[in-house]
Amino acid sequence: MSADAQQTDRLSRVQSNDAPTSPDPSSSSKPLRMRTNTAEIDSTIIHPGSVKINVTGAFIVDQDSGSPTHSNGYTNGGSHDTKDIRLPNHTAVVSHIAVDIGGSLAKLVYFSREPKSREPGGRLNFMNFETDRIDDCVEFMKQLKIKQQRLNGSRPGELCVMATGGGAYKYYDKIHEALGVDVLREDEMECLIIGLDFFITEIPREVFTYSETDPMHFEEPRSDIYPYLLVNIGSGVSMIKVSGPRAYQRVGGTSLGGGTLWGLLSLLTGSRTFDEMLGMAERGDNAKVDMLVGDIYGTDYGKIGLKSSTIASSFGKVFRMKREAEREAEDSGGLTNGDSESQSGLSSSPPPQVDTLSTSRSPETTTTAPPFSAPDISRSLLYAISNNIGQIAYLQSEKHSLSTIYFGGSFIRGHRQTMNTLSYAIKFWSNGEKKAYFLRHEGYLGAVGAFLKRQPRNWGRRGSFEESGSIGMEYPSPGVG
Amino acid sequence: MSADAQQTDRLSRVQSNDAPTSPDPSSSSKPLRMRTNTAEIDSTIIHPGSVKINVTGAFIVDQDSGSPTHSNGYTNGGSHDTKDIRLPNHTAVVSHIAVDIGGSLAKLVYFSREPKSREPGGRLNFMNFETDRIDDCVEFMKQLKIKQQRLNGSRPGELCVMATGGGAYKYYDKIHEALGVDVLREDEMECLIIGLDFFITEIPREVFTYSETDPMHFEEPRSDIYPYLLVNIGSGVSMIKVSGPRAYQRVGGTSLGGGTLWGLLSLLTGSRTFDEMLGMAERGDNAKVDMLVGDIYGTDYGKIGLKSSTIASSFGKVFRMKREAEREAEDSGGLTNGDSESQSGLSSSPPPQVDTLSTSRSPETTTTAPPFSAPDISRSLLYAISNNIGQIAYLQSEKHSLSTIYFGGSFIRGHRQTMNTLSYAIKFWSNGEKKAYFLRHEGYLGAVGAFLKRQPRNWGRRGSFEESGSIGMEYPSPGVG
Repeated sequence: MSADAQQTDRLSRVQSNDAPTSPDPSSSSKPLRMRTNTAEIDSTIIHPGSVKINVTGAFIVDQDSGSPTHSNGYTNGGSHDTKDIRLPNHTAVVSHIAVDIGGSLAKLVYFSREPKSREPGGRLNFMNFETDRIDDCVEFMKQLKIKQQRLNGSRPGELCVMATGGGAYKYYDKIHEALGVDVLREDEMECLIIGLDFFITEIPREVFTYSETDPMHFEEPRSDIYPYLLVNIGSGVSMIKVSGPRAYQRVGGTSLGGGTLWGLLSLLTGSRTFDEMLGMAERGDNAKVDMLVGDIYGTDYGKIGLKSSTIASSFGKVFRMKREAEREAEDSGGLTNGDSESQSGLSSSPPPQVDTLSTSRSPETTTTAPPFSAPDISRSLLYAISNNIGQIAYLQSEKHSLSTIYFGGSFIRGHRQTMNTLSYAIKFWSNGEKKAYFLRHEGYLGAVGAFLKRQPRNWGRRGSFEESGSIGMEYPSPGVG
Repeated sequence: MSADAQQTDRLSRVQSNDAPTSPDPSSSSKPLRMRTNTAEIDSTIIHPGSVKINVTGAFIVDQDSGSPTHSNGYTNGGSHDTKDIRLPNHTAVVSHIAVDIGGSLAKLVYFSREPKSREPGGRLNFMNFETDRIDDCVEFMKQLKIKQQRLNGSRPGELCVMATGGGAYKYYDKIHEALGVDVLREDEMECLIIGLDFFITEIPREVFTYSETDPMHFEEPRSDIYPYLLVNIGSGVSMIKVSGPRAYQRVGGTSLGGGTLWGLLSLLTGSRTFDEMLGMAERGDNAKVDMLVGDIYGTDYGKIGLKSSTIASSFGKVFRMKREAEREAEDSGGLTNGDSESQSGLSSSPPPQVDTLSTSRSPETTTTAPPFSAPDISRSLLYAISNNIGQIAYLQSEKHSLSTIYFGGSFIRGHRQTMNTLSYAIKFWSNGEKKAYFLRHEGYLGAVGAFLKRQPRNWGRRGSFEESGSIGMEYPSPGVG
């Protein structure tokens, strides 16, 4: 199926809904085409200009039980996540969509009725676009608006876009002008926390721990969730201490995140997609490029508990091996550029001979290039970045006395090696006292949080929104002026 | 002057010493050619098979006041550090040398009399070799042995090699067989601490803080030095909590160290020496490759105190810009490899097209290569690694309630940007409450520690060796068997 066909199909589901014509306060009690019940109506809290999402009985639609068009289909440069969340009891019109625009990816969440089903309710859809294709994302939102307007009757501007992430500010004018609707900007950290609280408390089979023997061990939704540390790994990494429903503080972060992995690997391996990089990492052997304790000691360094296989220095073998190969080339007359002047690696700087990128592919060294393969490099860098985030997360959790650590963000992508490394790091550094928790919608915390901010108070089953005090309000652009 | 000539000159200084013919207990009280004094003799503590180093009045010989051959001279692949330490009151024969063999560098410390001076005393010399040129290092030690034997009379095997670092184990047989003398192996962490304690307590103008306005603000030597955190940055990074003279614990570390910087930059920039890399970093602009907060928000993210210039993601611009350039190439017909299938970066893995290193130099993309220059890349990675070490060091210091943080190891190399970044990180994360301390002999902590372990008790001015209890003992190879 082509990308265009997929898009038409998906949007037709929205279009085909026979929903009430307006989101006015009485809409949820109007006669409904689909089955409903009193409890559902009772739980509806009316809020002018807003809607409530009935999450009773919400569950994740697993890959093969959903629409066939959901299997990682592409829609004009957007990618549709397979793990929709089914909301079997929600019937009211949803007139807003939410977007979280980060440095690398724009994440979109919207609600749609079931396309051909006679079942009530609908589902939350999750899509992402590369941020540098923001125009595709805006175009998609525009089409959602057109379809939703038809659903909602004739009121233009009824759609509201909840926007968060840095792009909510950077692309505010673009979105506002293209759609001609209200764009409400919400704080990034707050949305992350609202989204995470929702997933933890409301969605079964969402939160899990990872181990090699039990790669997706689900945690039951629960209400006693505070305090915890959220480590959100996107292009960069934010670490947020959360002590209550709206009580949070960004305690730290690191610039060594997904953007670092993707950027360096695109330069070093020629990979052009994240999945290609992860696929390579799975086949690689980091010991070919990393310097292990055994490489330095020839054995363990048992006195301080460092195994021979411990990574002492990421990429620590590269410099030596590359120079050895270059020396061999020199010895065989391959290089005659006066290199002996700088052979110790410690001379005061001679003028650099190379001012732009060059690697072992450059003509002089091709014949003796050291055996650094793209898979080995990919695995080494994936380990390095994941280990590092794990260690900093652990240290922050210690500093702030937090025993639960959730990892979110689009870096993780459900990738086993990544989760294994993060889990191992937390276990290693905490001597087994702390655990890493993951989420199946790890990339959509902020987008779901923004989506849910368009909500009245007290809507959740477990009261995760009790403290909500700023519904639908537009946050001022932070720090400007 | 050629390397050979330098070597001959340096060794001739050792040879020309008119020192006592044996290191027997009475040697220090024999008539000396050079002036001496009673206090010096009084302070001599006799220890069979060992010597004492008289550090009274020790000072660092600044570059231009030393022998002209000291200015970064190369000796058979070894590099001589300029900052000798003059020991004006030491007269006894020194029959040992010390070597600290790490993953990338072997650091050598030896004592020599002043070559043509009529002044008494001598100096500690500091040299380093690349570890993969260990044979050069061994050859140099062999020549030291020959010269020292001549100095010491006719007793072969009088020289003793104090060895530490992983290479003390890995290259034990090689050194032992080549030199035919005792090789005493000492624990790496213990040597680092002994060396650091010596520098802090005994050497004026050794320890300093860095700031842009006052790049080398010296701290006075002092005796109340505990507790502190040592962050030793070599190929990898070790963090050691020190609570007393021999009370230390390796509390953590990171594999993202000097080896990572050198390895990645040698691949990415074609640089062949560390100094070339650092020189490039000085000219670079990291904002060309790093994703800043301003790139994501278009402004500050003031609500959580992130400035527009804060690095959100190291190398975070690379992936996007590289793909944009590739798309342009595609649009102009430059690529016809079916790339549209994977254009979103989120497809499930197609078979990788590139299995070995490739960069923008590869033929397809040469014409539209994004403007990633080697200097920009060098600066970005230097910042990333230094910032990261600074943050982890700060967090470890918090966890262990340590307010003083020393940075050692060959990564630093007196480089201003590196020290500035480390200082800034400590200041930033601690809200100005903690400081980073540096040392002029930062790379030689372990080697000096090993050198000093060949010492009797109570030799130091400030008692930094009071707890010493394992002089000259060979440590068992850790963890073997």
